[in-house]
Amino acid sequence: MASIDINCDMGESFGAWNMGNDLEILGHVTSANIACGFHAGDPDVMFKTVQAAIASNVAIGAHPGLPDLQGFGRRAMAMTSAEVYNLTLYQIGALQAFAQSQGSQLHHVKSHGALYNMTVKDASLARAFAQAVYDYDPGLLVYVANANMTEAAQNLGLPVAFEVYADRSYQDDGTLTPRNLPHAMIEDVEQAVTQVKRMVCDGVVRSLSGKDVPIVADTLCIHGDQPGAVLFARTIRDALQAEGIEVIAG
Amino acid sequence: MASIDINCDMGESFGAWNMGNDLEILGHVTSANIACGFHAGDPDVMFKTVQAAIASNVAIGAHPGLPDLQGFGRRAMAMTSAEVYNLTLYQIGALQAFAQSQGSQLHHVKSHGALYNMTVKDASLARAFAQAVYDYDPGLLVYVANANMTEAAQNLGLPVAFEVYADRSYQDDGTLTPRNLPHAMIEDVEQAVTQVKRMVCDGVVRSLSGKDVPIVADTLCIHGDQPGAVLFARTIRDALQAEGIEVIAG
Amino acid sequence: MASIDINCDMGESFGAWNMGNDLEILGHVTSANIACGFHAGDPDVMFKTVQAAIASNVAIGAHPGLPDLQGFGRRAMAMTSAEVYNLTLYQIGALQAFAQSQGSQLHHVKSHGALYNMTVKDASLARAFAQAVYDYDPGLLVYVANANMTEAAQNLGLPVAFEVYADRSYQDDGTLTPRNLPHAMIEDVEQAVTQVKRMVCDGVVRSLSGKDVPIVADTLCIHGDQPGAVLFARTIRDALQAEGIEVIAG
Amino acid sequence: MASIDINCDMGESFGAWNMGNDLEILGHVTSANIACGFHAGDPDVMFKTVQAAIASNVAIGAHPGLPDLQGFGRRAMAMTSAEVYNLTLYQIGALQAFAQSQGSQLHHVKSHGALYNMTVKDASLARAFAQAVYDYDPGLLVYVANANMTEAAQNLGLPVAFEVYADRSYQDDGTLTPRNLPHAMIEDVEQAVTQVKRMVCDGVVRSLSGKDVPIVADTLCIHGDQPGAVLFARTIRDALQAEGIEVIAG
Repeated sequence: MASIDINCDMGESFGAWNMGNDLEILGHVTSANIACGFHAGDPDVMFKTVQAAIASNVAIGAHPGLPDLQGFGRRAMAMTSAEVYNLTLYQIGALQAFAQSQGSQLHHVKSHGALYNMTVKDASLARAFAQAVYDYDPGLLVYVANANMTEAAQNLGLPVAFEVYADRSYQDDGTLTPRNLPHAMIEDVEQAVTQVKRMVCDGVVRSLSGKDVPIVADTLCIHGDQPGAVLFARTIRDALQAEGIEVIAG
Repeated sequence: MASIDINCDMGESFGAWNMGNDLEILGHVTSANIACGFHAGDPDVMFKTVQAAIASNVAIGAHPGLPDLQGFGRRAMAMTSAEVYNLTLYQIGALQAFAQSQGSQLHHVKSHGALYNMTVKDASLARAFAQAVYDYDPGLLVYVANANMTEAAQNLGLPVAFEVYADRSYQDDGTLTPRNLPHAMIEDVEQAVTQVKRMVCDGVVRSLSGKDVPIVADTLCIHGDQPGAVLFARTIRDALQAEGIEVIAG
Repeated sequence: MASIDINCDMGESFGAWNMGNDLEILGHVTSANIACGFHAGDPDVMFKTVQAAIASNVAIGAHPGLPDLQGFGRRAMAMTSAEVYNLTLYQIGALQAFAQSQGSQLHHVKSHGALYNMTVKDASLARAFAQAVYDYDPGLLVYVANANMTEAAQNLGLPVAFEVYADRSYQDDGTLTPRNLPHAMIEDVEQAVTQVKRMVCDGVVRSLSGKDVPIVADTLCIHGDQPGAVLFARTIRDALQAEGIEVIAG
Repeated sequence: MASIDINCDMGESFGAWNMGNDLEILGHVTSANIACGFHAGDPDVMFKTVQAAIASNVAIGAHPGLPDLQGFGRRAMAMTSAEVYNLTLYQIGALQAFAQSQGSQLHHVKSHGALYNMTVKDASLARAFAQAVYDYDPGLLVYVANANMTEAAQNLGLPVAFEVYADRSYQDDGTLTPRNLPHAMIEDVEQAVTQVKRMVCDGVVRSLSGKDVPIVADTLCIHGDQPGAVLFARTIRDALQAEGIEVIAG
C-alpha cells in the first residue's frame, strides 16, 4: 500500500510570543519538526510541544537551526563544519531530553531555514550536520531535500526520507521552481493534491514545462504558519486517504 | 577501602572568552561538572570539554544553570517549578549528546550557582530539578549539598553523592560557615587535607567550635578558577592517596 | 483646563514574533512606552515603533526592562544597584538613538515588569534607576507609580508623572487592589471612565471600601495586549474629551 | 606638525569573562573603540570602560558589531541594509548614553569584525552603516579602511579618519596583504615603527614589492588582545613622539 508522511514545523513560539497553531495542525500531520531553542522555541515550549505531539500520536523530530533568535534562523551565518556539527548535536540532545522524559523518542531530524540553505551550498556543512545526527544515533531518520544532504546522510548509512512539497512547482531537473520565478507556488488545492497523488502513486511529478520527472516522495512538508494551513493540511490528508494512500510517519 | 571523588566545574569558557584551566585541572580530578550553555559554555566548548574529560578518564556530569550568561548564572531569578524542570532537562539532554556521540555517557548532575541557591530556599524547585534528572534517567547520580535537594532526590530513589569542601570550614550543624563570617575559608593546605581525611576515614568534620560533627563525604568540590587551583587539586589528591584513600568517581 | 496623558506599552514584538496591535493603539493614546531590546523589542522593531509614534504624534518613552527575553522581563532577578543603573542607561540611550535620528527625542522613561516590581521592594534599585535617567538627561519625565520611585526621582529633581489605572480598583491607602483579591479589576467600561474622570477633575479616587482618597493623575496606563484594548482606549479617550478633559502628553 | 591617532578595541570583556588589558593599553593610545554589547561588552563593562577612557583622556568611539556574542561578531551574517542601519544606530546610542552620563561624548564610530568585512563586499551595507552614523550625529568621525565605507561616509559629508596598520604589510594597490599570504604580518617592531613614520611624514607606504604607495594615515590601529600589545603600543607611541610626530585623537 502506498504511503506518505506529512510533516510540519512546530514549537516555534518563544517566551511570551506565540507562533503558529500547533494544537490544531497536530490533528492533521504525522510528524512534527520541533524547534530546539536556537532559532525558535525554548525549554517550556519544547516541553509542551512534545507533550502535544505525543498526545496526537505524531512522530517527534528535532529541527535544529542557527543561533539567531532575532532572525528566526533565516540569516545565513559564516560557520565552520565544527560549529555546525556542535550546534546540531546540542539541539538534538536537548529535544531528545523532552521526548525521552515523556516516554517517547526522536523519530527524525530536519535542518531549519538558513542552516538548510547553507548545506545546499556547502557539502562540508551537510556532512557536518549528518555526522552529528549519526554520532548521536545512527538510526535517526534524516529528512532530505537537497543533493548534499542526501549524499552526506546516505554515505554514513543514515536512513533518509525524501521530502516533497504540495504547494510548490517543480522544474525539469526535479528541483523546486525558485520562488522569484512565475508559477513557483501552487495555490489551487486540487492541483496540489493531484501533484502529491502522482508523486506517491506514480513516482513522478509533472514539471512546469510539462514533463513527468521521477521523484521519491517519503514525506510531505506543510507550512503551519500560513493562513489556511489547518484547512490545507486536512484537505490534503483526506484526499490522499480517499485515494487509498496511507498517511503515516515513515 | 575508603574512597572519595574529586569534582570540579569545567567548560565555563564561552565563544572567544576563556575561563579556567580545564586541561590541567583534568589531570587531578575524577569528575567534571560541565556547563551546558546557559550560564556558561557553548556547543563548541562542550564538545572540547567532553573530549578532554574522556581523554583524562574523568567522569562527565551536567552542570545546569540559569539562562543568564551575563550574570554567569549567579543572579537568582524568580522561576516556577515548571521552568526549573524544563531548563534542567534541556541542559542535561544537550550535554548528554556530546557524551553519547563520543562513546561516553553522563555520570552525574550538579546544579550551578543561583539555581543551586534557589533550591536551598525553595523545596519545590529542588523537587523540580530532581524530577527532571529522574525523568531523564533515574540512574543518574545527583551531587547534593543541601537538605532540600537531598530529600528531593532520595524521595525519587535517585542515587546521591554528598558533597564536601576542603577549603571551607563547617559549623556545629554540619553546614558551611557562611563566607561573610570569620574563618569561613581554610587557606592552609595541610589543614584542608586533614579535614578531608577525617571526613573520609572517620565520617566527621571538626567544626569551628571544635566539635566533631558527623558528615558523609562522597565527593569533594574543587574550585578551578582560583589561583593555585591546579596545585591545590594535585596536593589534595596526592595526600589522600598517600593516606590510602582511593580517589575515584563514585 | 484639566488634562491627562494616556500611555501604553509598545514595540513589544521581537524578530519574527508579533505582539500587540501598535498601529491601531497609537491612534488613541498620547504617549508610548517603547521596549528597548532587553525584555522585548529589537533594533528593527524599535525603528518602526518610533517611526509610527512620530507619525501619530505620540510622545516617545523608553521602557527599560530586565535582560530576560524568554521571561519577557517579568521574572525578578537579583541585581545590584550598579547593574540596574547600567542596564537602564543602556536602554535609554538605545531608544533615544531611534528618536533622535528621526528628528524627535525621548519624552519620558517608565520601568517594565519585574524591574518596576524590584524598585517597589528595594529603594536602592529605585534610586539607581532614577539616577540613570538623571545622568542621561535631567529633563526626562519619569512615570511613577510607587513610593520608592517617586521619592528617588523627586530627590534628584527629575520631573515626574503620576500614573493611574482605569481598569484597576484602589484601596484606602491609594494603592492598587492586588490582583489576587476580589474586585481588583474594573471590567465595566463606564465605571472605568467615571473613575478616571474623578481622578482628573476632583483629584480623588473612590476606594473599594467607598472612601474618596486623594490621588494625582498625570498619566493613565492602558494595556495594549488585551482583547478589546483598542476599543477601550478609544472609549476612554472619547469620554474624557467629551467631559472637557484634554488628553495630551504632559 | 605631523600627527596621528592611535586607536585600539576595548571593552571586550563580557560578564564574568575578561578580555584584553584595557587599563594598561589606555595609557598608550589616544582613542578607544568600545564594544557595545552585541559582539562583546555589556552595560557594566561599557560603564567601566568609558569611565577608564575618560580618566585616561582617551577619545571614546562606538564599535558596533553583529548580534553574535558566541562568534564575537566575526561570523558574517546575511543582513539587509535596514538591519545593519538599525543595529548600528542602537549600539551607537547605547554607548553614547555612557559617555554622555559621565560628561563626555562620542568621538568616532568604527565597525567591528564581520560587520566591517560585510561592508567591504557590499556597498549598500556600507551606506547603511554610514547613514546610521549620520542620522545619529552628522559630526561623528568615521574610521574608514575600505573604499565602500570611505565613499559612503564622504558622500554623506561625514568626517572620516583613514586607518592604517603598523603590523601589517601593504600591497601595490594600497590594500593590506591578506593574512594567508607570506609576509602579511610585520613582526619586527622597528620595521613597524618605520612604516608608520613614513605613512605620517611622507604620505606613503613601502609595499611588499618595494614600491612607495601613497597612503593617508589619520589613525593607527593597535590590537590589544595580543601578547606584547602593551609594550608594542608604548614603543610605537614613544618612537613616533621622538620623531616629532604628535600622537593625538583627530
